[in-house]
Amino acid sequence: MRKDLSREKKEYIEKTSLKKKLDRYYGKQSTKNGLKPVDMISKYTPEEFKFLQLRRKIIVAHLDFEKILVEMTKGSEFTVVSGLNPSSGLHYGHKLLFDLLLELQNLGGNVYIPLTNDETYLDGKVKSLEKSKETALKKIIPSIVAFGFKPSKTHIYIDTEYPDLYKFAIKISKFVSMSEVEKLFGREALSNPGQVFYRGCVQLAETLMPQLPEFGGPKITLIPVGIDQHPYILLARDIAKKLGMVPPAELVIKFQPSLKNPEDKMSKSNPSSAIFLSDSSSEIKNKIQKAYTGSVSSKLGHQKLGAVPEICPVFQLINSQSTDDGFVSDLYEKYSKGNILTIELKEIVAKELIKINSEHKKILFGKDLKSLEKFLLNKKLESVYNP
Amino acid sequence: MRKDLSREKKEYIEKTSLKKKLDRYYGKQSTKNGLKPVDMISKYTPEEFKFLQLRRKIIVAHLDFEKILVEMTKGSEFTVVSGLNPSSGLHYGHKLLFDLLLELQNLGGNVYIPLTNDETYLDGKVKSLEKSKETALKKIIPSIVAFGFKPSKTHIYIDTEYPDLYKFAIKISKFVSMSEVEKLFGREALSNPGQVFYRGCVQLAETLMPQLPEFGGPKITLIPVGIDQHPYILLARDIAKKLGMVPPAELVIKFQPSLKNPEDKMSKSNPSSAIFLSDSSSEIKNKIQKAYTGSVSSKLGHQKLGAVPEICPVFQLINSQSTDDGFVSDLYEKYSKGNILTIELKEIVAKELIKINSEHKKILFGKDLKSLEKFLLNKKLESVYNP
Repeated sequence: MRKDLSREKKEYIEKTSLKKKLDRYYGKQSTKNGLKPVDMISKYTPEEFKFLQLRRKIIVAHLDFEKILVEMTKGSEFTVVSGLNPSSGLHYGHKLLFDLLLELQNLGGNVYIPLTNDETYLDGKVKSLEKSKETALKKIIPSIVAFGFKPSKTHIYIDTEYPDLYKFAIKISKFVSMSEVEKLFGREALSNPGQVFYRGCVQLAETLMPQLPEFGGPKITLIPVGIDQHPYILLARDIAKKLGMVPPAELVIKFQPSLKNPEDKMSKSNPSSAIFLSDSSSEIKNKIQKAYTGSVSSKLGHQKLGAVPEICPVFQLINSQSTDDGFVSDLYEKYSKGNILTIELKEIVAKELIKINSEHKKILFGKDLKSLEKFLLNKKLESVYNP
Repeated sequence: MRKDLSREKKEYIEKTSLKKKLDRYYGKQSTKNGLKPVDMISKYTPEEFKFLQLRRKIIVAHLDFEKILVEMTKGSEFTVVSGLNPSSGLHYGHKLLFDLLLELQNLGGNVYIPLTNDETYLDGKVKSLEKSKETALKKIIPSIVAFGFKPSKTHIYIDTEYPDLYKFAIKISKFVSMSEVEKLFGREALSNPGQVFYRGCVQLAETLMPQLPEFGGPKITLIPVGIDQHPYILLARDIAKKLGMVPPAELVIKFQPSLKNPEDKMSKSNPSSAIFLSDSSSEIKNKIQKAYTGSVSSKLGHQKLGAVPEICPVFQLINSQSTDDGFVSDLYEKYSKGNILTIELKEIVAKELIKINSEHKKILFGKDLKSLEKFLLNKKLESVYNP
């Protein structure tokens, strides 16, 4: 048996360096362009408002979140908008976002969920607009409903099926210049005219729509986004001011990492990187078994040196999914000290996800399409708003 | 009394030069980029198909019009698409176009008329999208109906009120590159993202929509346009091929000239350049009295030298409006030889327009909004078309 752990030590140093690299990246991004790190918020948020993603450090930065805290404290309603590209059924990267939306709904959030089949099609992620609409209707909306959102506070729409959105987008267009759009998104992301319209107007319309008179007029709105979307929020804030609306607040989230690479996000375009809510128990076990981890490559090395949970996609799954704070922090301790084996961690996580998927499927099975209708936004915009 | 006509001679030469300049311009444009001059068509078109605007040389060029002639000869239906910016009530520049559409309808044309309130708003020609919609509903559609179009062969829609148009525009977007759009329209005409989407996709969707399966599939379609819109037709033809549709045929028309300047077109943005269908008899008389003409500035000069009817906006009004060929050619002869005074020409034209406006108002007065509904396109696109 090898006694020399030099290879494992090298691996451990590499993993620690990767953790530091990611920390630096998020640290730097979290103070850029007006963003604020989330620490102060975490410190001063009353215990009852500390939602799971704040406790688990999935939220890394914010802008104007204090204003949302004020609404929570008053027990008032506030608005949350978060869209989704309907290109496939949901995976745990999506679930992380919906878990956040649900926590926010339970704290008073009125949640708008645009399913952006236009964007999905224009970006070439699906073959047809209808395919994407079908995915939204048959796979995504039933899953969202099964997560337990309240129909009275959930407003889902598929972009092309809610055409008043385009009317509002056209109204907004006059306040957005092409030079701003090109500067913000770059010319490669604007290769066809529809992409220009989507990124330069429709996306803003989704974000600002809850501030139209039909939805009660200007109000504070919270937009959870990935760090790469921050410049877009700055545009939305700028346009909101021009329209006499309230600049939206922002929560920056760390995405669920790819099972293959902690620097990447879980994505349906790389199916082995992602666990889907439709995956079977054996698929879950298999994907987790083959996943990258925060551990070095030998059992002895792991026990001696410990692991780096922060860069471990497997640990990050339980971090975002388990609701038991004590259990998660205990697991963190044990795993980072090498007191629990990688294979044991994988078993725990697989078991948890198998349970979640099985319960999700059970709820889905009981839903009929009729029951989904009350979650769909169908308010006709009366066109009274003319900026 | 002055006997020396040197000043008038100079004027006459200037007017003749202007005629030659315009002839050269249209001659050059009519053979550019695949366009063909209209002469051969005029020559070989059977008498019964020689519609007024062909006889009066208002049509100056075409592309694939032979294909439409084949349909006419077979007694088959063909499709015509011609849109309008609803920024004001109609003037005689618009009427010239609708007269053409009506002639084409009488020869078998199934006419689609998009009222492009989105474009009107995005280009800053109206303050709000709703204002433009109201103009379309209250001023333009009643006038179109009063012109005598057949409801079974007329399909009018206001862009933002026919949202399936946007869905089709998004589908088309994937076949249009931003570099094509920029090359075609220039960056000044693309200052906001909505303009990019309108010019690069929505306009194409209007043009190609009658070829969707819901309207019977691919078919020959005729698009009457001004000479400046020819490059856009080339794009539409290119995209039609990519979508497996028939490249549209084109008729290039000379616009009704401004009352102030034969090189300009009649336009609502310069009200003294235009006579509106809503103008009173005294407004008509007054505008015509102050109009630029094809005559030199003294009565004696006119009688000796004659006039240039081709550059006379007043003569061009009777040329496009009178249905009496003999009367128009007789008037042309007399006016160009100076055998009819400018004041007499003005009286004749004013009298004709006063009659047209008065009859139009009488018909409008009898229309109720209900009767307009059967002219509106309300077919739901079933989304079966996925290019």
